[in-house]
Amino acid sequence: MAEFNPRLYFITDSTKYEKDEFLRRVEAALKGGVTLVQLREKERSTREYLELANEVHKLTLKYNVPLIIDDRLDVAMAADTEGVHLGQSDLPVNIARRLFGPDKIIGATAKTVEQALEAYEQGADYLGVGAIYPTTTKVKTILTSTEMLDKICHAVPIPANAIGGLNKDNIDVLKGIPIAGVCVVSAIMKADDPKQAAEELSAAMQDKLEL
Amino acid sequence: MAEFNPRLYFITDSTKYEKDEFLRRVEAALKGGVTLVQLREKERSTREYLELANEVHKLTLKYNVPLIIDDRLDVAMAADTEGVHLGQSDLPVNIARRLFGPDKIIGATAKTVEQALEAYEQGADYLGVGAIYPTTTKVKTILTSTEMLDKICHAVPIPANAIGGLNKDNIDVLKGIPIAGVCVVSAIMKADDPKQAAEELSAAMQDKLEL
Repeated sequence: MAEFNPRLYFITDSTKYEKDEFLRRVEAALKGGVTLVQLREKERSTREYLELANEVHKLTLKYNVPLIIDDRLDVAMAADTEGVHLGQSDLPVNIARRLFGPDKIIGATAKTVEQALEAYEQGADYLGVGAIYPTTTKVKTILTSTEMLDKICHAVPIPANAIGGLNKDNIDVLKGIPIAGVCVVSAIMKADDPKQAAEELSAAMQDKLEL
Repeated sequence: MAEFNPRLYFITDSTKYEKDEFLRRVEAALKGGVTLVQLREKERSTREYLELANEVHKLTLKYNVPLIIDDRLDVAMAADTEGVHLGQSDLPVNIARRLFGPDKIIGATAKTVEQALEAYEQGADYLGVGAIYPTTTKVKTILTSTEMLDKICHAVPIPANAIGGLNKDNIDVLKGIPIAGVCVVSAIMKADDPKQAAEELSAAMQDKLEL
């Protein structure tokens, strides 16, 4: 099985692309070294979400990278992906853990220490914390300070990632905070060359964050 | 466990009501004798869908009527409802059957004999066939003729229900077709008195359709 490593966590956004171009970009990101992929679909029907999940899963399996499905445990179970990511308006983590099984990866979004502790206690494997910067991929964004991110990292024993408007030029702000990795959408998805973008972001994380 | 009987199948629409009024109407329909209830939510978050499913489930359990969740197997599994209903753009029936288990009720929408046979072969317990009449509760409606409904009823050994704009005054059109029951939304949901509407529809089905 693909090993879980949230260091460079690529979250997709298919809304701007034809399917072939979308898949080409996801594969380029995998070639560029992303360590975890999340498929995030908000507008598609369940059937369409499942069909796209199956196609993306073929790619991630080829590169031995786990695939996480956003929100929809039914799609994750139907496609037998390695994990699911749950926001505060999605299924509770403990219910998803019971249905999905002990070996699957379950991630949760946390914006406060309380949410982080609850997700951890309910069985989450990792946290996404943000948005650190405003983002164009979510209509409603509530910003999370780097101070809160730091508090959350220290409050729970599971890996926590920073998310929200992050790219190779602004990740300095995360320096010294014990994050496990960085989640990005646009910095890779919308790059002229997603492979190069992933490589440069990875190099910047090592240089600036020693990650 | 509540017994499966699709005779008077009430599909909810919560969009026009405050939660208390919605639940009051669902309970009135149960008092009026509906034999099956489907919770159908298209706009809510997963968490909201689950919370509402849990509340409706308390009511249906009280009246010993199975609760079916539209589309979302994750919500159905999380709320442990008796069933799930799958349209052509939802999960395939065979995948849902594998995940949900052999004892759960799985329904499918069919507009053609091919779709009906596929759903049956994949493990569906019943079919919803329509829309017989135009309906106001779905934006996109493709009409199904009563001739097609009749063909489907004869093509598969599982119960098939008529759906779409049906009410006590127009169900005559179904006379002679071996349907198992009738699905309604508005005829009960929007009635001044949902209990009375369910009772009158039930009586009309007996009088006009010998059902």
